[in-house]
Amino acid sequence: MIRNSTKIICNSVTISKWIPKLPVRSLSAVTNPLVKVEVNDKTGIALVSMNRKPVNGLSLELFEALSTTFDDLENNKSRGAILTSECATVFSAGLDLNELYKPDVERFKKFWTTFQDVWLKLYGSTFPTAAAINGHAPAGGCLLAVSCEYRVMCSNYKIGLNETRIGIIIPIFLCSSLRNTLSQRETEKALTLGTLYNTDEALKIGLVDEIATDKTDAIQKCEYFLLQYKNVSPMARSLTKISLRKQGLEELENSREADMQSFWSNLTEPVNQKRLGEYLQSLKKK
Amino acid sequence: MIRNSTKIICNSVTISKWIPKLPVRSLSAVTNPLVKVEVNDKTGIALVSMNRKPVNGLSLELFEALSTTFDDLENNKSRGAILTSECATVFSAGLDLNELYKPDVERFKKFWTTFQDVWLKLYGSTFPTAAAINGHAPAGGCLLAVSCEYRVMCSNYKIGLNETRIGIIIPIFLCSSLRNTLSQRETEKALTLGTLYNTDEALKIGLVDEIATDKTDAIQKCEYFLLQYKNVSPMARSLTKISLRKQGLEELENSREADMQSFWSNLTEPVNQKRLGEYLQSLKKK
Amino acid sequence: MIRNSTKIICNSVTISKWIPKLPVRSLSAVTNPLVKVEVNDKTGIALVSMNRKPVNGLSLELFEALSTTFDDLENNKSRGAILTSECATVFSAGLDLNELYKPDVERFKKFWTTFQDVWLKLYGSTFPTAAAINGHAPAGGCLLAVSCEYRVMCSNYKIGLNETRIGIIIPIFLCSSLRNTLSQRETEKALTLGTLYNTDEALKIGLVDEIATDKTDAIQKCEYFLLQYKNVSPMARSLTKISLRKQGLEELENSREADMQSFWSNLTEPVNQKRLGEYLQSLKKK
Repeated sequence: MIRNSTKIICNSVTISKWIPKLPVRSLSAVTNPLVKVEVNDKTGIALVSMNRKPVNGLSLELFEALSTTFDDLENNKSRGAILTSECATVFSAGLDLNELYKPDVERFKKFWTTFQDVWLKLYGSTFPTAAAINGHAPAGGCLLAVSCEYRVMCSNYKIGLNETRIGIIIPIFLCSSLRNTLSQRETEKALTLGTLYNTDEALKIGLVDEIATDKTDAIQKCEYFLLQYKNVSPMARSLTKISLRKQGLEELENSREADMQSFWSNLTEPVNQKRLGEYLQSLKKK
Repeated sequence: MIRNSTKIICNSVTISKWIPKLPVRSLSAVTNPLVKVEVNDKTGIALVSMNRKPVNGLSLELFEALSTTFDDLENNKSRGAILTSECATVFSAGLDLNELYKPDVERFKKFWTTFQDVWLKLYGSTFPTAAAINGHAPAGGCLLAVSCEYRVMCSNYKIGLNETRIGIIIPIFLCSSLRNTLSQRETEKALTLGTLYNTDEALKIGLVDEIATDKTDAIQKCEYFLLQYKNVSPMARSLTKISLRKQGLEELENSREADMQSFWSNLTEPVNQKRLGEYLQSLKKK
Repeated sequence: MIRNSTKIICNSVTISKWIPKLPVRSLSAVTNPLVKVEVNDKTGIALVSMNRKPVNGLSLELFEALSTTFDDLENNKSRGAILTSECATVFSAGLDLNELYKPDVERFKKFWTTFQDVWLKLYGSTFPTAAAINGHAPAGGCLLAVSCEYRVMCSNYKIGLNETRIGIIIPIFLCSSLRNTLSQRETEKALTLGTLYNTDEALKIGLVDEIATDKTDAIQKCEYFLLQYKNVSPMARSLTKISLRKQGLEELENSREADMQSFWSNLTEPVNQKRLGEYLQSLKKK
């Protein structure tokens, strides 16, 4: 099984050698203004904070910063990463609609390829991951969260994959992440209805694992989860994770171009562009 | 992903263009005596009532009527369909055993092909579907229900896939539908044991989504579910549904002939014919 | 579907002809000291007791005895098997680490091939199976249990797949069995964390189906489960079971050599051998 997926696995085999029992070196040097990375020298766990105000709209630049960050964490054999947000009430509002409205072909190609990269690196990371969801997480925001291995969410926010409500076709890799988290039944309902769940509902269906009182509490609970891996062999752990997520990873690896084409052709249909334009207008009025 | 399944997807892409905000035209003209179709002009939702007394035994003719109905609903860009029964205490008793006992090769071929068509059209419909299960739903009756996207069941009836109890091999597409509804664990138990669940048990394991007091209540609850799609893009919705159900749909598309052969060769084994004959005799005595 | 898997299916088709309504003949003649088989002449159910004291460490010899036992049960068209242990507090402690520490290539090949055989025969058996887990069931012990169709566990023991805690890579077929039992979410958590669950926790996540007060009670509950198949057609039952488990069975059938290579190359890495050596030393001191 493992050997069919050369790219992914060579990668993980190379990377996930035994992690030396030294504190991981600080990554602050490579920190980008859009993504802050702070490594706890005691635990070796990295706090990765998205910092594109006001709502962490996922633009090409934010994706590039996340992609670089995940590479650095791999290269430094991170002990674990907690994904969170610097915005007050939003984890991430999802894809920046400015990337989707009247898109330029060349920029879109780069944007979508980097989006795919980010997902492959996060969903298929050899280091353990958790999301401290300290605000709303619709669409792409929810996708980032379900690509992690554990989710702690602050009360009174909304999370869900509401793409069908705004007429956007859901990319295949989104289905993989959600299916890895919810039952098949809940996945179908969640995606076709485009439901945005409040924190309690999200806990009930298993979309998040725990509820937190605030951001600090959320980060602590994520740390507690990640520290459980202290007594686990990093290599056995990462090969097991990749093996379980392999099908979804390969599905995208084998159809990156087609996935992009499919999204592009749907996105650029006049009716969808019109709808997006109206939606963007309505957001500006708010 | 989507582009590998030319047949299914071309179909859904062609069909599921944006639905105009006009009341769907009444389908009463094409209504067949075996399947009554009433479209609510306010909501655009079609009530599809199987009407083959006394127990909606699934004969070639009933399958043909269902197949035509589902085609009409696709062609008319239906806003949704509720499948129910005109029989007093039975949703559908499953395959008409007269089609299976001492079968004629040519009729059986037509029967089985139409059965496959009906499943592909219902499980893979671009319009939203719900089942108002107003009576018993064993075997093929249960299959029709789990091919829909939502199930509301009246109290005090039985539902389940009891094929193994009558010695019938379960066709592969039945497994796909059930797996899409239940967990893998419950699917294995349900199918190997051939359990018939009462309404409460069915709710508990997720085989149905809601309980209703009577048929009217069941239909209303189905309508309520379907009306939630009012604010969802029909095209994004249908592509998402097909994408999630694609594996099961393709599995049958790619093996229709083999699926028929397999069922036929098992069905015509003398021991199975003998068993069916005895079973039919015992039903006549009741 | 069924016809693509020639090996597995030919096998099951040949074997699972209608079982005559005679008591299954006693298998005591072929009983091996490492595996005791007692057939209840009234029910036809076989009690299969692993008997390699002190902890049923899964050695080549124990695997060979299990493999022969499962063949005999198939050939005798067993009505069902209950897997249990003769050890006082351990169901099975998993792979005998002496087979893994400083392994001889030729013996390892035989060991691993037989392990694969045992899994294919147990997970893909045409006869119904249940595990009476009368003691701890870590790693390979848990794998044997989740390869059965039903699990009853005595209180106050531990069960789980803790391979990542001892640095062992999990073979692919282990994932199949666990996924067939737990949700995808619980599977990922259970395997990456290497959690050992107590009996109550195991029941809660669905890793076992029932709790028993003692071994006798566990066996009775397994019998009760298996007797439910009395009214089910053995052939329809077994084809349904194989059909649902086919993907996992085929995955191993198609990659037996690669699966062995992969485990071998990981196992023989100096760091893993060192770790195993230390672990064996620590066990001896206990």
